Amino acid sequence: MNTTTTNTARLLITCEDKAGIVQAVSSFLYHQGANITALDQYATEAQGGRYFMRVEFEIEHLQTKKDGLVETFQANVAGRYDMQWRLACVSDLKKVGILVSRVDHALLELLWRHARGLLPCEITHVVSNHDTLKVAVEQFGIPFTVVAVNKDNKVEAEAEIHKIMQGNDLLVLARYMQILSADFVEKWPMQVINIHHSFLPAFVGANPYKQAYEKGVKLIGATAHYVTADLDQGPIIEQDVERVSHEYSVEQLRELGQDVERNVLARAVRSHLEDRIIVDGHKTVVF
Amino acid sequence: MNTTTTNTARLLITCEDKAGIVQAVSSFLYHQGANITALDQYATEAQGGRYFMRVEFEIEHLQTKKDGLVETFQANVAGRYDMQWRLACVSDLKKVGILVSRVDHALLELLWRHARGLLPCEITHVVSNHDTLKVAVEQFGIPFTVVAVNKDNKVEAEAEIHKIMQGNDLLVLARYMQILSADFVEKWPMQVINIHHSFLPAFVGANPYKQAYEKGVKLIGATAHYVTADLDQGPIIEQDVERVSHEYSVEQLRELGQDVERNVLARAVRSHLEDRIIVDGHKTVVF
Amino acid sequence: MNTTTTNTARLLITCEDKAGIVQAVSSFLYHQGANITALDQYATEAQGGRYFMRVEFEIEHLQTKKDGLVETFQANVAGRYDMQWRLACVSDLKKVGILVSRVDHALLELLWRHARGLLPCEITHVVSNHDTLKVAVEQFGIPFTVVAVNKDNKVEAEAEIHKIMQGNDLLVLARYMQILSADFVEKWPMQVINIHHSFLPAFVGANPYKQAYEKGVKLIGATAHYVTADLDQGPIIEQDVERVSHEYSVEQLRELGQDVERNVLARAVRSHLEDRIIVDGHKTVVF
Amino acid sequence: MNTTTTNTARLLITCEDKAGIVQAVSSFLYHQGANITALDQYATEAQGGRYFMRVEFEIEHLQTKKDGLVETFQANVAGRYDMQWRLACVSDLKKVGILVSRVDHALLELLWRHARGLLPCEITHVVSNHDTLKVAVEQFGIPFTVVAVNKDNKVEAEAEIHKIMQGNDLLVLARYMQILSADFVEKWPMQVINIHHSFLPAFVGANPYKQAYEKGVKLIGATAHYVTADLDQGPIIEQDVERVSHEYSVEQLRELGQDVERNVLARAVRSHLEDRIIVDGHKTVVF
Repeated sequence: MNTTTTNTARLLITCEDKAGIVQAVSSFLYHQGANITALDQYATEAQGGRYFMRVEFEIEHLQTKKDGLVETFQANVAGRYDMQWRLACVSDLKKVGILVSRVDHALLELLWRHARGLLPCEITHVVSNHDTLKVAVEQFGIPFTVVAVNKDNKVEAEAEIHKIMQGNDLLVLARYMQILSADFVEKWPMQVINIHHSFLPAFVGANPYKQAYEKGVKLIGATAHYVTADLDQGPIIEQDVERVSHEYSVEQLRELGQDVERNVLARAVRSHLEDRIIVDGHKTVVF
Repeated sequence: MNTTTTNTARLLITCEDKAGIVQAVSSFLYHQGANITALDQYATEAQGGRYFMRVEFEIEHLQTKKDGLVETFQANVAGRYDMQWRLACVSDLKKVGILVSRVDHALLELLWRHARGLLPCEITHVVSNHDTLKVAVEQFGIPFTVVAVNKDNKVEAEAEIHKIMQGNDLLVLARYMQILSADFVEKWPMQVINIHHSFLPAFVGANPYKQAYEKGVKLIGATAHYVTADLDQGPIIEQDVERVSHEYSVEQLRELGQDVERNVLARAVRSHLEDRIIVDGHKTVVF
Repeated sequence: MNTTTTNTARLLITCEDKAGIVQAVSSFLYHQGANITALDQYATEAQGGRYFMRVEFEIEHLQTKKDGLVETFQANVAGRYDMQWRLACVSDLKKVGILVSRVDHALLELLWRHARGLLPCEITHVVSNHDTLKVAVEQFGIPFTVVAVNKDNKVEAEAEIHKIMQGNDLLVLARYMQILSADFVEKWPMQVINIHHSFLPAFVGANPYKQAYEKGVKLIGATAHYVTADLDQGPIIEQDVERVSHEYSVEQLRELGQDVERNVLARAVRSHLEDRIIVDGHKTVVF
Repeated sequence: MNTTTTNTARLLITCEDKAGIVQAVSSFLYHQGANITALDQYATEAQGGRYFMRVEFEIEHLQTKKDGLVETFQANVAGRYDMQWRLACVSDLKKVGILVSRVDHALLELLWRHARGLLPCEITHVVSNHDTLKVAVEQFGIPFTVVAVNKDNKVEAEAEIHKIMQGNDLLVLARYMQILSADFVEKWPMQVINIHHSFLPAFVGANPYKQAYEKGVKLIGATAHYVTADLDQGPIIEQDVERVSHEYSVEQLRELGQDVERNVLARAVRSHLEDRIIVDGHKTVVF
C-alpha cells in the first residue's frame, strides 16, 4: 500500500529470531540517510524461531548508492545476524514470461492488468503449446511463440522454453496444461507461479471441477502457488473461493471458477512483483 | 424464507425426470384446497436424469386431513411417477439429540439459537463422553447424560447412546470426538449431522488445524455433513471459510475456525429441520 | 443454471397472490406439450400481496408456436389472474448498446465476457463522449461512435444517442460519466443498467471513493441498478463489497473498487439477459 | 497475532511523519533490554503527514520498570518527535462495562467469548434500561443493574450510569437503544464502542433493517464505531456484510443481521482491548 518512486527500495530478510534486529536494520538505514516507508516483520512462535522482515525505504540517489548499500549492509548487519537477504529496487522492473495453453482467462487478466499499469513488471514473452492465443497476445504487443510438446519431445521442448525465457525473473503458468519436469523446475527455484483450479490441498491432479462436482462441495476455489518438483504441492501464495450449490453443472463450476482463478493468480503475481513474499520451507510469508 | 403456521406442510419428492411432474403435483394440491407458498425443483442435467422437488403449502385443518393426503397423493401422483417422497408438517417439531465431548462452542451455538427460537425443533437430550459441559447444558433445562467411551466398551457405549436417543429424528455431533461405528451409523441413515473442522475434502482425519498450519493454506474452513460409514466422506450439507495468513499459529487457526464451525453447523441443522435437504447418492440437494 | 436451446422460452409473471397460480401455469404448459425445466416463485408476505414467477420450459417448434402460445396464455390464464407477463425466447438474442466515458474496466469486462460466450446477447454499438476507447472497442469488431456532450448540447446529444441506440433491448452504462435526463430515461424504462461505484445508498453522488476514504469505511462496494429519473435511486440489481483498511489511499480504493464494479455489472447484465429480473416498485426480484 | 505474557507491553504512537522514527523507537527499546515482538506503522500519504506506530515488546521485570520506561521514553524519544503516545501493559487487564436494552445477541456473544478467554478484559458490570436480561447476565457472575430511562429523567439516569461505570476503561453499547447525550459522551472520549445495525453510512438512524428492506439492498451489514456527539458518525472500527435477496422479510433481515452484528462488535472490542486502534480525526487506524 505504499507509493513508490525511483528512489524506493525493499529489503527482504530471513534469519534466526534474536533481540535487536529491528534496531540494527533501522539504525543502518537511518545512518545511510534512508527513510523507512513500510516495515513488516514476523517471527515463528518458538523461541529461537525464524524471523522474517520486509522494509521499504526511500533514499536519494538510490541507483548510484545501490552497490555500496549492499556491501555495507552485508558487512555491518547481515553478517552479524547470519541473514539471508536481498535488496530490490522498485524501478528495476522485473521481467516476466508467461506460459499458457488454450484457455485464455488467466492470461488475459494478466495482460489486461498490466496494460492498465496494475502489474509493475515487463511482460517479455508468452509461450504456448498451441497457437490458439497468438492473435490475442500479439494485440498487446507482446511476442508469442509456440513450443509444441508431445510425449517424445518433452526434454527438447523444455530446453527451448528455458532458452526463450532466459533473463526473466519470473515465469507464470497461466493455465499451462503441461507438467514441468523436476529438472526444469530446479532451474527456476521459487520463480515459477502456477494457478491451480481448486482449493488445494483438495482436488490435486486432473479435472478438479469434475472432482468438486462429484464430491458435491458447496464452495469452489483456486490456489496460486510456487511450482516445485512435487506436483501441486509447492508453497501456497494465495487462495480464494466462491459459493456454489447443487444446481451447478461441471461446466458452470468451471465458468465461475475461472473468475476466481484469474483474480487469485493476479493477486499472487502482484505480491511477487512487489517483493512481498518470503518462502519459509513449504510455506510462504506474504507481507 | 417462508412463514409457517400450524397448517403448513412440505412435500419432498425424488423421482426420474419426466414431463408433467410440476403440473401433477400442483394440480393435486389445488384440488385438495391447498395454497402453494414455496416451490423449488432441480433436475440433474442428463435427459431422464433424477428430479427433486420441495413444495411448501398451506391447507386448512392439516392435522385432520394429513393421513388422507398421504394416501391420496400416493395413489394419484406418487405411484404414477414412481416417486420417493415424504410429507412433513411444520407443527410436528422434530426431536433432536446432541452428542458432544469437551469443547463447547458448537453445542452452545445450537442451544443459544434454539433458546432464541431460531432452530425449529425440540432438543431432547445431550450425551457426552465427559462431564465437562454438564452445568452449561442443564442451565438450558436440557437433560445431560455422560456415556463414557473407551476402547473396551465401545459396543456397549453405542448401544446405550442408541437407547437414550430413541425417538429422535436427528442426532447432531457438535464436536463429538469419538468415531461412530458403521453399525451405529446404519441405524441412523441420513439422520446424523457432523461438523468437521476443515474444508473437506482437504484435511480429512485428525487435527485438521495442525494440517492446515503445516500446509500454509490462506483460508480455513468447516464442513457440515451427514455421517456415513465412510469417515468424513458423507454427503456435504454446508461449508464456509475464513481468510488467514502466515501469522496464525495452530491455536489461532483453531480459535478462528471455531467461529466458522458453529455457524456452518447451525445453518446445516436448520436446513435439515426445515426439510430443505434431499440426499442424492453421495451429494445433497439443499433447497 | 439451466441448459438452453432453440426451443427454450421463459415466462415472467407478476400478479396478485391467489391460490392456484402454479397449477394454472403448469397445467397450461403441460397441455401445450412443454416441459418445465426451471420454476421460481416469490410472494410478498402480506396476504393478497404481489406474486412473481419465472418459468423456463422447452417446447418443440417454439418459433412457429410462439404467437399461438402468447395468445392462448393470455386468453386462458393471464386474463383470469390479471397478470402482467411476458414470454422470452432464449434464441431471440437481446440487443445491447453500451455507453462509456474514458475509464475502460467495466466496458472491457463486458466485451471480454461476451467474446467468451458468457453474455447471451448481441452487443450492437458502443457510444462514448470521448474517443479514448475507440481502438479497444473496434478490436472486438463492435462499432464505436463518439457523441460529445457539453452543457449546451445535452438535448441534442441525448437525441443522437437515442437514435443510434434504437432497436436495442438494453443500454448499459459502463462508467458513463454523464447524467441522463429524465426525458431520456423515461424512453428506456427498466432498460438502462448503471454501475455505481459505491455500496448504495451510501455515498450517492460524485466521487464515492473520496467519500469512502474520508469516512474511513472498512469495506468498499459497488451497486448495479436500473436507471430512473431519481439519480442513483433506481431499483438495485446486484451489489458486492471488498474489505479495505486505513492503509488504502483514494487511488488504491478506486483500483480495488474497479474489480468489484466490473464483476457486479457483469452479473447484473447477465441476470437481465437471462430474464431473471422482475421489477417490483422500487425493488427487484432476481430469480 | 502475538503471544503475550506478564512482561509484554505495547507502545502506541502518533506524530508528524519524519525520518528516523523507527530507528529512534527501536534503538530506545533495544537499549532498555526489550525485544520487539510486533511492529506496525502507517503514514498518511502527504509528505509531512501523520505517522502512526504500534510496537509490542517483551522486557524482563516490566512491572517494576514501567514508570521508568515511561519517563525515559518521554525524555529521550517522544519529546523530540512531539509524539502523542501511551504505554499499555498486557497484564493490566482493561475494565469493561456493558450497556444493553432488551435484545441479547450482542451481549451474549461478548459474555460467551469472555468466558472462553477470547476477550482479554474484566467485565465489571452490565447496565440496562430494562430487567429482561438480568438472569442471563447474572448466570455469568457479572453484576447487573437496571437504570430506567424516560424522557424526564435522562440527565439523572446518565449521571447514575456514569457513576456506576467509574473506573472502567471502556463502555460497550451492545444494542443499547438510548441515545447518549453529548455531555455523557464527552466524559468518555473514544472509550465508548457502539454496534450499529447497518453498513454505515447507509441507513443512519432508526430501524435500519426496515430501511434496507424498503430499499431492496442485496447485502446487509453492521458497523462498530466509537461514539461521539454526532449520532452514528463516530470513527468506524469494523464492518461486515452478508448477502440477502428479495426473499428476506424485515424480520429475516434482522435475524441474519444479528449474526453480523455480534461478530463485528466482538472483533471491534477485541481490537480495542489489544491496543490495536489509534483514532485519526474522524477515522481509525486499526493495526
